[in-house]
Amino acid sequence: MLNQHSLSEYMEKGLLQLANGFTNHDVAAMKAELPRVLAERSERTVLEADGKSVRSVYGVHQHNRFFSRLARHPKLIGMAQQILDDNVYVYQSKINLKLPFTGDVWDWHQDYTYWYNEDGMPAPRAVSVAIYLDDVNEFNGPLYFLPCSHHTGAQKHRPAEGRPAGYEDAPSWISNLTAKLKYSIDRDRLHELTLQHGIVAPKGQAGTVLLFDCNIIHASPPNISPFGRAALILTYNRVSNAPAESRRRRPEFLASADSRPLQALPTGRVEFFQHYL
Amino acid sequence: MLNQHSLSEYMEKGLLQLANGFTNHDVAAMKAELPRVLAERSERTVLEADGKSVRSVYGVHQHNRFFSRLARHPKLIGMAQQILDDNVYVYQSKINLKLPFTGDVWDWHQDYTYWYNEDGMPAPRAVSVAIYLDDVNEFNGPLYFLPCSHHTGAQKHRPAEGRPAGYEDAPSWISNLTAKLKYSIDRDRLHELTLQHGIVAPKGQAGTVLLFDCNIIHASPPNISPFGRAALILTYNRVSNAPAESRRRRPEFLASADSRPLQALPTGRVEFFQHYL
Repeated sequence: MLNQHSLSEYMEKGLLQLANGFTNHDVAAMKAELPRVLAERSERTVLEADGKSVRSVYGVHQHNRFFSRLARHPKLIGMAQQILDDNVYVYQSKINLKLPFTGDVWDWHQDYTYWYNEDGMPAPRAVSVAIYLDDVNEFNGPLYFLPCSHHTGAQKHRPAEGRPAGYEDAPSWISNLTAKLKYSIDRDRLHELTLQHGIVAPKGQAGTVLLFDCNIIHASPPNISPFGRAALILTYNRVSNAPAESRRRRPEFLASADSRPLQALPTGRVEFFQHYL
Repeated sequence: MLNQHSLSEYMEKGLLQLANGFTNHDVAAMKAELPRVLAERSERTVLEADGKSVRSVYGVHQHNRFFSRLARHPKLIGMAQQILDDNVYVYQSKINLKLPFTGDVWDWHQDYTYWYNEDGMPAPRAVSVAIYLDDVNEFNGPLYFLPCSHHTGAQKHRPAEGRPAGYEDAPSWISNLTAKLKYSIDRDRLHELTLQHGIVAPKGQAGTVLLFDCNIIHASPPNISPFGRAALILTYNRVSNAPAESRRRRPEFLASADSRPLQALPTGRVEFFQHYL
């Protein structure tokens, strides 16, 4: 569980980084699953603009036994319940690879804009938990955040730029997942908000855990370095904040329909972690 | 002139940043020239991949009276002569705009590769002087350098990717100037060199002066921030290192044919600078 100071910082800034969340051994176990995750070609795999490099794999908590169990890690569930003040379930999970020399930009956006517009999530009461699978440095495409911007509510979007090359016939959700975002934030508004809030780019060693609010404004630059920057992102939602099934337009792997309260694994069963938060 | 410590640092690392090189007043005078420089549409103006935003304007020391005089600033000429140990002339000049939300990547490269292959510069004996026209921070596309990499000599290139969109009919020099570089460095070799040298990304206030060697490996990421990052870059070459006219294949604004020793302006005539290095 987070202590009061950490919880207050999260509530105020909309983000919180926890160094040494997982050990090197834990991270090695997570990375050992990547070949299995990447071997499958499915609609859950999104490619970069080059049409060949994997950008993201969605739904890993639904399709991979290891990550399904990791999502039920008692410390992760505990923090999510504490922040959201309710029982929780995993709304979305993904691995973002941000490959060396290849990983492309994520334009400025708020996650909740998608979850409201596309899936009908009633309120911005979800938290994302990123686990760094590689060291994150200044050069390999770290996340950029406007701290405290989650308090400002939904922001004006830019006009969408249409489907990216190679995805012209893809279903409508694809442009939410590639470098050309459907709902990126209006440039003038972003300039104002940046002057007000500043930008921060948290860095940390592999195993670091970063919590962020579903309404915080964020982006990430391309990775032009030789250092990969893979991360697992688990988004927890309040059970009482699950979208109505009638509003949900996107596939299960983008917005889970299973909103039953997630039960933490008993400590003894999380045998692949030697260390807890 | 540089003191011995600064000169040694430059020689060892291949780069040297001088804070407070120019005052805010000087920078304001430089920026006041930008509308004039940008108003002209000529082959000296290179656009970003969007086909409308200016990426660079070359030949400013040849075509703009203000920058022509700035290139003859006694402190700049003095440092160049000191570093190159000869009389000098301006081989190339440009303004790189790196516009907010727009300025694109410069892939990893060595300047001298171009100057040798395209222009026939005999030896890697040139120094570039960048003057920051905006504050350079972590977010607006700072230059990335591998310090000391200029000692490693010419590196293996990647295969060129062909002309960028909109430039299919352009003369052969254009792919040297856009985000798709003709001579970018082989990825595996770059990985090795990065492990060996590390990466640095100098930041500083507008008016900062950054000197770098023509063989140092460098790049810069896109600017996804709302903060512009314009810089003037003046490259000085040794008079005795001028390419033979028969080898020079690129236009005058990319490789000056006028290699007469540049005379520093007498201090009293540089009336637009109230402050010297």
